[in-house]
Amino acid sequence: MDIPKTPDRFDRAELAALLDGRWAAIRAEVREALAGTDLPPGDHLDTEAHRALTLEQLHLLAKSGIPEIGFPVAQGGRGDVGGSVVSLEMLAGNLSLMVKAGVQWGLFGGAVHALGTERHHERYLPAIMNVDLPGCFAMTETGHGSDVQHLRTTAVYDPDSEEFVVHTPHESARKEYIGNAARDGRLAVVFAQLITGGERHGVHALLVPLRDGAGEPMPGVHLSDCGRKGGLNGVDNGRISFDQVRVPREALLNRYGDVAPDGTYRSPIESTGKRFFTMLGTLIRGRISVAGTAGSAAKLALEIALRYGSVRRQFDRPGASEETAVLDYLGHQRKLLPALARSYALHFAQEQLVETLAEVQDSGDERARRELESRAAGLKAVTTWHATSTIQTAREACGGAGYLAENQLPQLKADTDVFTTFEGDNTVLLQLVAKGLLTGYKDQFEELGTVGMARFVADQFVGAVIERTAAKSLVQRLVDAAQRDDEGSVFDRGWQLRLFDDREQHVLDGLARRLRRATGKDADPFEVFNAAQDHVLRAARVHVDRVVLEAFVAGIERCRDAETARLLDRVCDLHVLSSIEEDRGWFLEHERITPRRAKAVTEAVNGLCRELRPHAVELVEAFGIPRQWLTAPIATGAEAARQEAQREHDLASS
Amino acid sequence: MDIPKTPDRFDRAELAALLDGRWAAIRAEVREALAGTDLPPGDHLDTEAHRALTLEQLHLLAKSGIPEIGFPVAQGGRGDVGGSVVSLEMLAGNLSLMVKAGVQWGLFGGAVHALGTERHHERYLPAIMNVDLPGCFAMTETGHGSDVQHLRTTAVYDPDSEEFVVHTPHESARKEYIGNAARDGRLAVVFAQLITGGERHGVHALLVPLRDGAGEPMPGVHLSDCGRKGGLNGVDNGRISFDQVRVPREALLNRYGDVAPDGTYRSPIESTGKRFFTMLGTLIRGRISVAGTAGSAAKLALEIALRYGSVRRQFDRPGASEETAVLDYLGHQRKLLPALARSYALHFAQEQLVETLAEVQDSGDERARRELESRAAGLKAVTTWHATSTIQTAREACGGAGYLAENQLPQLKADTDVFTTFEGDNTVLLQLVAKGLLTGYKDQFEELGTVGMARFVADQFVGAVIERTAAKSLVQRLVDAAQRDDEGSVFDRGWQLRLFDDREQHVLDGLARRLRRATGKDADPFEVFNAAQDHVLRAARVHVDRVVLEAFVAGIERCRDAETARLLDRVCDLHVLSSIEEDRGWFLEHERITPRRAKAVTEAVNGLCRELRPHAVELVEAFGIPRQWLTAPIATGAEAARQEAQREHDLASS
Repeated sequence: MDIPKTPDRFDRAELAALLDGRWAAIRAEVREALAGTDLPPGDHLDTEAHRALTLEQLHLLAKSGIPEIGFPVAQGGRGDVGGSVVSLEMLAGNLSLMVKAGVQWGLFGGAVHALGTERHHERYLPAIMNVDLPGCFAMTETGHGSDVQHLRTTAVYDPDSEEFVVHTPHESARKEYIGNAARDGRLAVVFAQLITGGERHGVHALLVPLRDGAGEPMPGVHLSDCGRKGGLNGVDNGRISFDQVRVPREALLNRYGDVAPDGTYRSPIESTGKRFFTMLGTLIRGRISVAGTAGSAAKLALEIALRYGSVRRQFDRPGASEETAVLDYLGHQRKLLPALARSYALHFAQEQLVETLAEVQDSGDERARRELESRAAGLKAVTTWHATSTIQTAREACGGAGYLAENQLPQLKADTDVFTTFEGDNTVLLQLVAKGLLTGYKDQFEELGTVGMARFVADQFVGAVIERTAAKSLVQRLVDAAQRDDEGSVFDRGWQLRLFDDREQHVLDGLARRLRRATGKDADPFEVFNAAQDHVLRAARVHVDRVVLEAFVAGIERCRDAETARLLDRVCDLHVLSSIEEDRGWFLEHERITPRRAKAVTEAVNGLCRELRPHAVELVEAFGIPRQWLTAPIATGAEAARQEAQREHDLASS
Repeated sequence: MDIPKTPDRFDRAELAALLDGRWAAIRAEVREALAGTDLPPGDHLDTEAHRALTLEQLHLLAKSGIPEIGFPVAQGGRGDVGGSVVSLEMLAGNLSLMVKAGVQWGLFGGAVHALGTERHHERYLPAIMNVDLPGCFAMTETGHGSDVQHLRTTAVYDPDSEEFVVHTPHESARKEYIGNAARDGRLAVVFAQLITGGERHGVHALLVPLRDGAGEPMPGVHLSDCGRKGGLNGVDNGRISFDQVRVPREALLNRYGDVAPDGTYRSPIESTGKRFFTMLGTLIRGRISVAGTAGSAAKLALEIALRYGSVRRQFDRPGASEETAVLDYLGHQRKLLPALARSYALHFAQEQLVETLAEVQDSGDERARRELESRAAGLKAVTTWHATSTIQTAREACGGAGYLAENQLPQLKADTDVFTTFEGDNTVLLQLVAKGLLTGYKDQFEELGTVGMARFVADQFVGAVIERTAAKSLVQRLVDAAQRDDEGSVFDRGWQLRLFDDREQHVLDGLARRLRRATGKDADPFEVFNAAQDHVLRAARVHVDRVVLEAFVAGIERCRDAETARLLDRVCDLHVLSSIEEDRGWFLEHERITPRRAKAVTEAVNGLCRELRPHAVELVEAFGIPRQWLTAPIATGAEAARQEAQREHDLASS
């Protein structure tokens, strides 16, 4: 097989600029701000010292100007929500700090901003930005993490005193895993079932003071510590219970629902469910930040492993004068290079997601907002799983050295591990994506009288048919130009795109057919849906795969240097073909590729690994991870120096 | 599809006894000893306190009688090597202690025992057993971890003083990651290139004192600390360099090679390479212990996740009075139940491996010993990867609760992570297995004049064609009885066995053909072999898969209770069919199954998950993990109590 060659040289600056993308100026600004601020991770410290350091670093960061990026201009911010997401992900080398910042500015500040009104903005946002007011985002409960619509904390309005009474009815209803709760938080955005005049209006958010100026808990507020966690121990996660805590009527973040002094409830959105999901939708930024940060952490891990792999040598090669660099082994390349290629793909998809966020978050275009939510859910799931597996692989690829704290990989792994869980459990998120996709079939269910299924499918998601990505016309052109049969080159981009698109359609059609067939028999919609859950999750995954690929293709199209584009084409090939190889069970099972072609795909993956190996370190450097985060001795010269010393010694003694 | 039913009840005692197997008495003894000894993990402590506690616990363990199990009767031991492996794996709830014990008794003591002679045994083993003499196993160097044959520490014999001079020529040659080196070790088994009279005799082991009675480093010995690691921080891993350190001639562990006072070298094994691999072979116990412990850790993680999953509830089910237990979701079952089934398979394979160890370790049957080494290498790789992925999955399946230290999963993950690396990097081990398998084709290479490849394939492994497992006749009977075509039941054990056997043969034949073809062109054997490395690694994996399956089938055959055997048959089905599903790309690509049958396999996996779900907790309990290791609140009642409180509250308020 002829593997298309990579160019001998390419334009590194062009590649870096392409990857920096629309927020290149912000990235440059943040790189500079970080270079001028000493923010070393404190993971070697005990819990209390680590938390104290992280808070101190949060204050330093507040002074850097970074938090202002995302807040409204009216309160002294810069109103650049995309820029704020991009800036947060650049903290990947100190993830406790990133999460602390995400809690303070993204979740807590973001909720006050998105769910509150002017009175809240004016009063609180300046102090949130400069961390005079550290706060919490208290949504999750011990008993309700994924299913937050059914959380059990109550906020009952008392018209006599014009107050809300916030209460935790049982242990399951206490707020759980709340960042800033165990130590630093003074005020919390608390999500609770709003009840006024005996009537329930669903989940709403209220501001509840947690601690007084001296740091003591407020009356009726019980705070405890979640203790040590797998990672992120610079963040003080805690539990909060409320014992009939009273807050004034104005404490309600009242953008989507308000209570008049007499207790009358009013909301611009009639349905309780729709109202809640609209509120959740405004908080999408946190989820997008998690995806971005997971992507950054994976890049940093890959940079460490690739730098080490290119200097680390092991085993004599017959006839060669020195031992073989481990990255020259095909097995090692196969561990790291497809993950690098996927990091590229996800990078372009993330950039596109952030652009969409910037464009539609505050627009009235509800359909566009639903699409954004689905895209964010899917990409968060796929990127955080990618980070978990990539960092794991990078750790193993560095052997014993990868297990030493000084080489960063254990901490990267430990800190990012919960990314697959928080801001939405990945499995639950993929199911949401699939339900969104299935709403396109809702009418068909109803026609068949399977109303139960139609409602079941749509109950947790307001529904959106997911459209083509921004690259629609480009993709269509490539698909149209592709060979129609299975005999052409596996490197034909049009064929690759068609394959992904066709897989998505087929899986989704099959799923809808399967659900329709089963519900026709008057079966329990839950049972029917649950029996197909593997199919449901697959539908979401292959959908995300298609979206990600199209984003990568569109990204290459923006590259202005032909040689650089040619290199990116090979990276894209490796991404696509290793994905196809991984899922060739499905493609073969559904006769989308022949056995012969499946073998050709494997051969192509091997060939692309060989072709890209000389460029591996440059490719990972191009992501521009701030240099201060790369501290692992094995990746910054120690191993290279040792190899050199050994070489000299061997020469002298031979 | 009709999924074979599981029995409504089965004999739990019979199942537990079957799993306890040949070393049931040892397991019972160790369970009792552990129950009577307070050995809580010290992971919440700072490094120094954690190390101090772990050493203290090692002394407690020494008094329990456990270490004696494996040491020779002559020195007060019980001479039960299998029992010693089984007893170590039962420390899975305190892995720092397990590894500290493994270093002291398995590696350090094991090397003195296996490589030393009577004079060493008498002088050192009693003090090693009772930890009066804490010691190190100093093989790995910074520059040579996988390729220990080429380590660079030298031991030059000086006939004038009748001493060896042990020396570290450059940083790459320092001993690295050595357990007990940073804090506690007094004596080390040091592996070094033995040179006498200017002639090199390959790697040998010598006893070198590290610290004096006051704990100060001996002259010329430089000790440093590896610092924090991803886990196992109760073990004091360190680095050792030697600056012309002199030890007496008798310090050489001289079972496989000795130096006379005048410097004459003598060994019962002529070839340097063969001698070294023979020495390594005697140390196989450590590798087998790692596999066993990884398996135990995975079982403990599964027990936590399955217990939690069966009481944790999330999301209303339309028409149901309470929320759905998360283990009732197919997606959740698919995360955990195939991993549980694989834990069963690996359990039986490990039992068989330990039996083989007990039978052949000290026998003169070289072929049997090579088989043992190959089996140990393959099973260590597969089991430790299984542990890594299973514990990861269990963590994610427990959501935020799984990230809290109190629920054990983060520590299990962190501690076992390096298991895929130490006692042999998994990728390197699989390559050894494959090379062993390929030696059966060696003659064919030579016939074709591709002598380079023949030598290359065999250079690091003395070579063994891997035979059938002990279950040979049973397997043959089942295979013979299987339907010959692709139309029968996917639950037909004979068909399943044949499929695994056929895959192994096909992959291996194909690999040999591929290597032969490529080397026929006078190509560089390294290049040829490296270009096929993915194929090489696959050959090893599918070989191990076959061996593991046959061990499982043989285990079920030993079950005396029909209902229990029927339950185990379903567990085995889930193991096999989920493995086939995972690798269906290969089976389809090679037309071993039809697309239709591939879909039937997926349907069967779903059905088996449903069938086994009610038995999941009992199945995992049957492994008999010592109860003191199960401390996670979510798995020991806290979550159940919370759900009950919520249920009562909901009833009262409805």
